[in-house]
Amino acid sequence: MNTLFARHRDLIERAVQALGMRGFWTPFPEVPSGKIYGATAREDGRLAHEARLGQPFALEGHPESHRLGAEVSPWGPALGITYPAAEPATLVAAAEAAAPVWAALAPEARVGILAEALVRLNAMSFEMAEAVVHTTGQAFPMAFQAGGPHAQDRGLEAVAAAWAEMGRAPARALWEKPAKGAPILIEKHWRVVPRGIGLVIGCQTFPTWNSYPGLFASLATGNPVIVKPHPGAILPLALSVAVLRDLLAEQGLPRDVVLLAVDSAEAPVAKDLVRHAAIIDYTGSNAFGAWVRANAGAARVYTEEAGVNSIVIASTDAFGPMCANIAFSLALYSGQMCTAPQDIFIPRGGIETDEGHKSFDDVAKGIAGAIDALLADPARATAVCGAIANPATLDRIAAARGLGRVIRDSAPLAEGRSATPLVVAVEASEAEAYGTERFGPIAFLVAVGDAEEGVARAAGLAREKGAITAALYDRDEARIIRAADAFARAGVNLSVNLTGEIFVNQSAAFSDFHVTGLNPAGNACLTDTAFVAGRFVRAMWRRPAPRPAA
Amino acid sequence: MNTLFARHRDLIERAVQALGMRGFWTPFPEVPSGKIYGATAREDGRLAHEARLGQPFALEGHPESHRLGAEVSPWGPALGITYPAAEPATLVAAAEAAAPVWAALAPEARVGILAEALVRLNAMSFEMAEAVVHTTGQAFPMAFQAGGPHAQDRGLEAVAAAWAEMGRAPARALWEKPAKGAPILIEKHWRVVPRGIGLVIGCQTFPTWNSYPGLFASLATGNPVIVKPHPGAILPLALSVAVLRDLLAEQGLPRDVVLLAVDSAEAPVAKDLVRHAAIIDYTGSNAFGAWVRANAGAARVYTEEAGVNSIVIASTDAFGPMCANIAFSLALYSGQMCTAPQDIFIPRGGIETDEGHKSFDDVAKGIAGAIDALLADPARATAVCGAIANPATLDRIAAARGLGRVIRDSAPLAEGRSATPLVVAVEASEAEAYGTERFGPIAFLVAVGDAEEGVARAAGLAREKGAITAALYDRDEARIIRAADAFARAGVNLSVNLTGEIFVNQSAAFSDFHVTGLNPAGNACLTDTAFVAGRFVRAMWRRPAPRPAA
Repeated sequence: MNTLFARHRDLIERAVQALGMRGFWTPFPEVPSGKIYGATAREDGRLAHEARLGQPFALEGHPESHRLGAEVSPWGPALGITYPAAEPATLVAAAEAAAPVWAALAPEARVGILAEALVRLNAMSFEMAEAVVHTTGQAFPMAFQAGGPHAQDRGLEAVAAAWAEMGRAPARALWEKPAKGAPILIEKHWRVVPRGIGLVIGCQTFPTWNSYPGLFASLATGNPVIVKPHPGAILPLALSVAVLRDLLAEQGLPRDVVLLAVDSAEAPVAKDLVRHAAIIDYTGSNAFGAWVRANAGAARVYTEEAGVNSIVIASTDAFGPMCANIAFSLALYSGQMCTAPQDIFIPRGGIETDEGHKSFDDVAKGIAGAIDALLADPARATAVCGAIANPATLDRIAAARGLGRVIRDSAPLAEGRSATPLVVAVEASEAEAYGTERFGPIAFLVAVGDAEEGVARAAGLAREKGAITAALYDRDEARIIRAADAFARAGVNLSVNLTGEIFVNQSAAFSDFHVTGLNPAGNACLTDTAFVAGRFVRAMWRRPAPRPAA
Repeated sequence: MNTLFARHRDLIERAVQALGMRGFWTPFPEVPSGKIYGATAREDGRLAHEARLGQPFALEGHPESHRLGAEVSPWGPALGITYPAAEPATLVAAAEAAAPVWAALAPEARVGILAEALVRLNAMSFEMAEAVVHTTGQAFPMAFQAGGPHAQDRGLEAVAAAWAEMGRAPARALWEKPAKGAPILIEKHWRVVPRGIGLVIGCQTFPTWNSYPGLFASLATGNPVIVKPHPGAILPLALSVAVLRDLLAEQGLPRDVVLLAVDSAEAPVAKDLVRHAAIIDYTGSNAFGAWVRANAGAARVYTEEAGVNSIVIASTDAFGPMCANIAFSLALYSGQMCTAPQDIFIPRGGIETDEGHKSFDDVAKGIAGAIDALLADPARATAVCGAIANPATLDRIAAARGLGRVIRDSAPLAEGRSATPLVVAVEASEAEAYGTERFGPIAFLVAVGDAEEGVARAAGLAREKGAITAALYDRDEARIIRAADAFARAGVNLSVNLTGEIFVNQSAAFSDFHVTGLNPAGNACLTDTAFVAGRFVRAMWRRPAPRPAA
């Protein structure tokens, strides 16, 4: 089995090196190009996806007492795919039965298998993109990148971090203590011992990107994993589980090292599974996150929950590009990214720019106009905004219209269940409007006394409600550093003066740590050492060593 | 301030290297020798200790609303020392006030200061030994080693592990993404952000050894720390806090980065402090440990709790040395070590040895006789057994006499509140006797069908009740490996065929990971990466970087 490690050794070692350098690195091309993925790859992916529609999804040997699955594409049609389902107790028993073989493998054997799985997932990125499009509502370009190569990057990142951490101490050492006469010699042997069953609870909007880190980190460290997808976005994770199970079987290993726990909104199984898990990776709402954290017992829990992301506009020497950059961040996937900004703090008296002084309303108009310009072409608008994953988001938009002065109204696009950004102006005192997460394409322009107040309010919201990103536009270097300090203390990563082709929403594997774990938006970080180190322990046995012959 | 890092750079780097090698290494000599520590060191330490008796303990600038302290030496006299005490809210406010300056220091500045503190603590190891003797009841040799150099080793280990982890990613990187035309350049800056107030809850038996890892790990990663000693063993931690506070003041830093939270058995403050802490290090009972874990909220919790450690005797080719080794492990500090064995599983039908077949009773007699021989000389007996820290332990001994057939009775020694090992024989079916932790010099010889049953029962107990150590005597290599597997799965470190000057109780910093964190004896490990990595996060700020000049 170590042939897979040998095959992917260079990939794994370069990934470990990249983690330490934090520059740009990715082995999985993000461009959905036929030149890279094969001339027929896009068409092949589409056909493969279509062949699954209306069919039972095959997962050979998977526990199955009944079938579940009622996914409906945010673009319209029901997928009509059913998946094998089983009682939580059955899944837990299957995971426990598969666990010892997986735990007994050398770490390098596991790591080699997981690298191979990611390479196979990469090869099917076009099919995955279709699956992501029709469960999340993402437009194809994002679905390809975030559901495919970027998710694979995050998976490899977890494998590499786990590999590095498992290798931090040797498997064997000779302890030679000086003593009167001959030294005392003890041979010591350590083994990596996995913690137990891993449970990965996925979300609807980024089913692979947010699930791969926990899935691959738990597997790399020797734990079996039960993957519980969101009932609205099963297919991308079912495909992933299928790749892993097939590969395990090829390697003569039990398929049930990785299991799929499909449920429905009416009869959820997550709570039952939480009670049996030793490791839990959760992406979702703060409310269920709080339940998971409170009920996990001795399990290690890694969460990404929700928060309120902010932008503070203090000044800029690129007014137009700033507005365009913000517009894209608000419109991209209709604000359904955990990194999307919601609150934009703008001084009540306006700001200084390369185009001279701009009043609060000038800035508001600049951003609204940039959104309109971005979405003027219907095809481009759909490619940027995608569709709305959950109908409840439309209700939230409707309610948000009444929360302040509507600067730009939300409207559906030509395709799918869709909504362009709603932009509402409020006063800093109206925290009941902007101080809560309102998931979806809803943005508040918040009038503050000055930029310092904006930073203080944004950082305060991050501490209290959670935040994953923050952005600042400013020309004052000292104020930038003070803001960086303030957001760091609040556990938020800050982007400064972004214009052009880089956006606050973006989080690149091997470089950006995603979520700090220091505020309510999540207790874990993709992928720092803490994310992998707690998934296994080291157990030793030692005994007196024979004296070496003189 | 980085002069201290420069001064100790070699020490820190060698410590990091040792952590990766896991062979023998220590910078702090464990031999209480005048040649090493100075000809008058022992006498100086004694005089320094005596000068503190009956006096208020000085902690300059420490919050103080009243004085507390009612320590009584297990060797007889009351210490008569009082310590500054303040309300938890006052201590928390003081820690919060001191936190920003400590957090803002470069990691290397903090690490340099902490290395200097450990070197200073090392220089006062004789005074520390006296303080440990008269709070824990340890005899002088152990008090010196465990309370001094070995605790300092564990502190340095935590500093080194934290230093290595903080350095795992750079403080700055250039992200250069290829793009059509010029690459996209983003400069990224990361800072280490501490999690918040650290709380260290000490135990009575090893006040420094068990507290230094959490104390030094939290400090190294930028957190202020409140140290709450056991009310029966305040002095060793008060001395440690004093060294740190004085050094902080010398460096122009707020003393309140480290605070002492003295309480009494009648009015404990730990629960109040737990509610304010972001990081909690706890050593103590499972009962209070469970409370801490359930009530810590979002705080990171690292515990060492209690368990039932076992020895399994399958066969031996060194019967006499085996009995002598076990006898020492049972008698050392009267079984008050977290690593001391309690249950010794012996085949009902006896074992094969270098002295021929030995029946169950022969083995029992061998061990009992070895204890008697070890403790025959009264001075040596006191030096091995020390005194009993807590009077409740004597009650437990009395009760344990009725739990089976007494093979060797416990008796007081000439000095102090003391008790030699009680050895009781029971059947494997009598789990209510041996299946619970009975802290103190209480050992059960448990008759089992065979060695495999012994391993299974010992590993089962470890999983269910917790265990930190296990030992096995066996000549069968295949059975040894199977036992190593079984104990590893139960999260227990195993020692095999120990004879001579190495004992199952011993856990050497930089080589032995202490506690695995996989069973109820504790959720943390001294000192693996997981022990340090969760004490801080990394926060980034990024912005477009200027194009380098062509």
